Amino acid sequence: MHKIDLQAFDLRTDLIIEQNVKNIKSNKYSYKDITVEGIILNKNNDLGKKEGKYVTISFKDITDSNSYESVLNIFKKELKKVIDYLNISNDNTCLIIGLGNPKIISDALGSKSIQKIIVTRHLYLLNNVDLKYRNVSILEPNVMGVTGIDSFEIIKNTINEIKPDFVIAIDSLCALDIRRLNKTIQITTSGITPGSGIGNSRCELSKDTLGVKVIAIGVPTVVDSAVIVSDTIQCILKKVSYLKNSYKKIDKLKPINKINYFDNNSVLKDEERKEIMGLIGLLDNNELKKLVWEVLSPLESNMIVTVKEIDFIVEKLSSLLSEGINKVIHHLD
Amino acid sequence: MHKIDLQAFDLRTDLIIEQNVKNIKSNKYSYKDITVEGIILNKNNDLGKKEGKYVTISFKDITDSNSYESVLNIFKKELKKVIDYLNISNDNTCLIIGLGNPKIISDALGSKSIQKIIVTRHLYLLNNVDLKYRNVSILEPNVMGVTGIDSFEIIKNTINEIKPDFVIAIDSLCALDIRRLNKTIQITTSGITPGSGIGNSRCELSKDTLGVKVIAIGVPTVVDSAVIVSDTIQCILKKVSYLKNSYKKIDKLKPINKINYFDNNSVLKDEERKEIMGLIGLLDNNELKKLVWEVLSPLESNMIVTVKEIDFIVEKLSSLLSEGINKVIHHLD
Amino acid sequence: MHKIDLQAFDLRTDLIIEQNVKNIKSNKYSYKDITVEGIILNKNNDLGKKEGKYVTISFKDITDSNSYESVLNIFKKELKKVIDYLNISNDNTCLIIGLGNPKIISDALGSKSIQKIIVTRHLYLLNNVDLKYRNVSILEPNVMGVTGIDSFEIIKNTINEIKPDFVIAIDSLCALDIRRLNKTIQITTSGITPGSGIGNSRCELSKDTLGVKVIAIGVPTVVDSAVIVSDTIQCILKKVSYLKNSYKKIDKLKPINKINYFDNNSVLKDEERKEIMGLIGLLDNNELKKLVWEVLSPLESNMIVTVKEIDFIVEKLSSLLSEGINKVIHHLD
Amino acid sequence: MHKIDLQAFDLRTDLIIEQNVKNIKSNKYSYKDITVEGIILNKNNDLGKKEGKYVTISFKDITDSNSYESVLNIFKKELKKVIDYLNISNDNTCLIIGLGNPKIISDALGSKSIQKIIVTRHLYLLNNVDLKYRNVSILEPNVMGVTGIDSFEIIKNTINEIKPDFVIAIDSLCALDIRRLNKTIQITTSGITPGSGIGNSRCELSKDTLGVKVIAIGVPTVVDSAVIVSDTIQCILKKVSYLKNSYKKIDKLKPINKINYFDNNSVLKDEERKEIMGLIGLLDNNELKKLVWEVLSPLESNMIVTVKEIDFIVEKLSSLLSEGINKVIHHLD
Repeated sequence: MHKIDLQAFDLRTDLIIEQNVKNIKSNKYSYKDITVEGIILNKNNDLGKKEGKYVTISFKDITDSNSYESVLNIFKKELKKVIDYLNISNDNTCLIIGLGNPKIISDALGSKSIQKIIVTRHLYLLNNVDLKYRNVSILEPNVMGVTGIDSFEIIKNTINEIKPDFVIAIDSLCALDIRRLNKTIQITTSGITPGSGIGNSRCELSKDTLGVKVIAIGVPTVVDSAVIVSDTIQCILKKVSYLKNSYKKIDKLKPINKINYFDNNSVLKDEERKEIMGLIGLLDNNELKKLVWEVLSPLESNMIVTVKEIDFIVEKLSSLLSEGINKVIHHLD
Repeated sequence: MHKIDLQAFDLRTDLIIEQNVKNIKSNKYSYKDITVEGIILNKNNDLGKKEGKYVTISFKDITDSNSYESVLNIFKKELKKVIDYLNISNDNTCLIIGLGNPKIISDALGSKSIQKIIVTRHLYLLNNVDLKYRNVSILEPNVMGVTGIDSFEIIKNTINEIKPDFVIAIDSLCALDIRRLNKTIQITTSGITPGSGIGNSRCELSKDTLGVKVIAIGVPTVVDSAVIVSDTIQCILKKVSYLKNSYKKIDKLKPINKINYFDNNSVLKDEERKEIMGLIGLLDNNELKKLVWEVLSPLESNMIVTVKEIDFIVEKLSSLLSEGINKVIHHLD
Repeated sequence: MHKIDLQAFDLRTDLIIEQNVKNIKSNKYSYKDITVEGIILNKNNDLGKKEGKYVTISFKDITDSNSYESVLNIFKKELKKVIDYLNISNDNTCLIIGLGNPKIISDALGSKSIQKIIVTRHLYLLNNVDLKYRNVSILEPNVMGVTGIDSFEIIKNTINEIKPDFVIAIDSLCALDIRRLNKTIQITTSGITPGSGIGNSRCELSKDTLGVKVIAIGVPTVVDSAVIVSDTIQCILKKVSYLKNSYKKIDKLKPINKINYFDNNSVLKDEERKEIMGLIGLLDNNELKKLVWEVLSPLESNMIVTVKEIDFIVEKLSSLLSEGINKVIHHLD
Repeated sequence: MHKIDLQAFDLRTDLIIEQNVKNIKSNKYSYKDITVEGIILNKNNDLGKKEGKYVTISFKDITDSNSYESVLNIFKKELKKVIDYLNISNDNTCLIIGLGNPKIISDALGSKSIQKIIVTRHLYLLNNVDLKYRNVSILEPNVMGVTGIDSFEIIKNTINEIKPDFVIAIDSLCALDIRRLNKTIQITTSGITPGSGIGNSRCELSKDTLGVKVIAIGVPTVVDSAVIVSDTIQCILKKVSYLKNSYKKIDKLKPINKINYFDNNSVLKDEERKEIMGLIGLLDNNELKKLVWEVLSPLESNMIVTVKEIDFIVEKLSSLLSEGINKVIHHLD
């Protein structure tokens, strides 16, 4: 479990409107209710981010089989593009790492995903493998709180030993927006930092630290309760703004409970915000999150939470990731 | 998983102050940081509740072994008192039911707890059992969404077949207060209604419907995100109220992050609440929850959530419940 | 886990040669290395067996995907024929029972299989289901040693409550021949007796006892170590017999370790058997098993055993059974 | 899973009688029905074995709580003696390795055992630990067939990184005698070779290969079916021998099914053995195993098997090992 740097994506929202930022190529498309956003950042980009390709696949649902297939197809397509972007050839060897704590289901996405990967490295050692299968091995380093050993140490030493050409690292993420929870797959080439954990948060997994190409794949499976609260307060303000603006032109045919206030970009005036939410209404999103955190912490109620059905969702997500990875890296389609 | 009627407990908070309500005997004590509240409601009580004994054990933590032992001892003591209250004798036979969905860990408290119960009914059928052990059997009816069969039907028919003298039903609950999440054990004799579920929510498990004495044991393991939001907004108001009132007399030696604003009972004036939180600040708790629900529902963001470490916590809680029940019903202490 | 009556199948081996037995219709075919034997016994058959259809599907392997698909297809075809034999119509409702102890993997085939069944009865109660899906529910009664309740009681009462038109019961079996271990699927209409267990072994699940049509599906996943020993001693004799008979005409091109001595039907003379195996060689198969049992019991070494990889094999078998049942009962192909 | 070299123990049986072998100190004692045998081999011992301490704890049962406690106490005592034998001091750091495949329950003893170990290395890194706890970390390298990576490589590199003072390696063993199955704990200081597996069987874990002291702990949880057969044939001969010798002096008060023929050391004459078992009766134990293996292999019936209840037994054994190791290495008693 780790917090991937989502600022690139948050900023993206702005950039789509502004268009003119230099050094950034962006690309966005939709299929049914799935949205894909991809950006490529150059070395000295204006966002202050690491260079690389960042892809976000957003979807509504993967629990029915049709949606599952649609998301799977897009995941395969985007993963393939990332592999091409990194100039990974068909005979490059791959180590797939399942990060996180396998005994905490909300943190077990990596561990569950690698269980279903088709592993072949030992067969290559015996010269006993169909060549449509790539040379693939897996590693589950677990977390330092369980093993006493920094997962970075285990990963680095294993890579030094078996020298894969590239690494795929899968992890559960912490959502910074409730609408992304369990509904976003992120693929990046800029690395990943496992474990907010115990003292070693600077041990990023990336080409710089490991010496091999890294593809990080993550899904946000948990969220800070402070995020839930501040997102909701924003929603209250957006709803009021929507109602005010649409008072005369309201669409009588659209059911009220299907209106997505969140995408409403009209802005309330300060005095209106103060009328509705008082001083709280004047805080920006970061100030609000900070206040909520300050209030909840002494009550020991600032929790990292996950949805009730997380067992079922991690089962589906890990199945999708492993099936997609198997098909793409082993050329099985 | 079900919503136990917590109103009796919520009202209790008020009643402790008021004292004079007729038909209600109350009892409250603390041990270390564990608080126990017990009330007995008569048939025609002023709360409009079912008659019976209601016990709530509140604690801070059961993950370290000392706290675990303390909570276990109090749970055993209170369970024994409930058994005595129901005039259950040492040779009465018992069926222990683990409600909920065993594959969803936040709903699996019942299922996990009964796995460790010492079962003897089959040995009694063979006249092959040490008499300090009670005649005990277990049942895991699962949930209708998994089996297609109403759990109430399975329970009722099994009780008709094996005719136990009393039933203990264990279930995960939905918390109505974030501070209770995973930190409260509730024991009641008034019955339990499993499954908000599919059409059959009126199938209460109680003496009235099953014909045998019922002890319901529950722990809140999930919470509605609307509750998190409204509890937090209340906390913001309480914190401001606390800061205002304690401006001059503030305890410089007490670390700011250890102050429990929530127990602050001083009340802000309406204009103060409006200053801080605008119109939202004037809503009462139920109006606030309703507003939050209205805002979040169209976004499909009104989730039932649980803490990230739920696997570990259900392991500990189920261990505590089964150990306590084994010791009390089998006279092993 | 139970011992299905395999005598019908054992006798079958003989009957295939003889052909003329009255009241028995037999049918046998092969596909690749899969063999299917089906017989129908009338009420007063010469075998003294219950009337009904008995099908045995024998295979070498289901762990590679090609073999898996072949066995799955034959299983679906044979299950469909059994359903037709019982005159079960498309709108008949079905209860699928997973027998055995879900916590003992060698006994968990039933439990694992029903987890993947598509359940619809609760949707039918709400009139909310695509009609290509049959009305299906599932039940996991567990075993008496775990619950204290006879699984037959739970099954009978559930059937009385929900009144399905037919029942499919899935169970792990005890093999009477090492070559059948994990390599045979048996389908019968004559019923099944779960649990050699504790006192209640006469509680057969069948149309006679439950009042509804019963299809029993089983796979032998365990074997008595006495069976391993006596089968091996038979093999030693068969190997010697083979070597003797084929001394001159031996096929030099056939690798010695691919010769299946077991299918060798030539018989050694008594003096030859005595030469090789002494008095032991003169015992018939049942006498030999009895002797082995007598010798091993006092050493507490007469074990019920299973193969080392049982976890993996039960995973594959349960996947195959549930996939096959889903496709056939829900008309999904 | 691996085959520990049991020849030292097998030879031990002989040595106890003979006494005079030089360079070998032996020690044997019993407590209730538990037997402990310890030997120390010097560098150039006459057995051709690696030098070191070899301890075997044999027991009848650990499933009832009294026997469990007795075996646990002896295990703790013997483990402590091994630690002293290796001159391991209280502040030496320890890495505990759970060998085997965690998804195959008969091979998961190591993996299950380390799950319950108290891990402290990460707390030492933060200077945040009660000094009665040793600096301990754990590693689960899994098996090459699953990960594609030789477990030896992962272990060696992790040891190079974290530099523990000693290693405890826990593994499931393959029994060479049916009476030892699940009923023997072996502790050795001479190393262990995980994985008969894929090509790398020479990667022994020992002081020679890893540069740190190694304590190997194993329990036989599987057995080759050829061993079952040959052990049984030996038993048949021993039983006949017993009956012959005790014909006149038979103890009428001792129930026949409690006689342990296996410990009968009287020997049948060759003509008697031939009378009973023919030519087979004249084979020695190794010749017999080889014959059985030759006969069963072409039938694909030479299986590695385990007992039906292996899930339950591995649960108990891993609980015992982890509890014992925790108490001894952390000075908790």
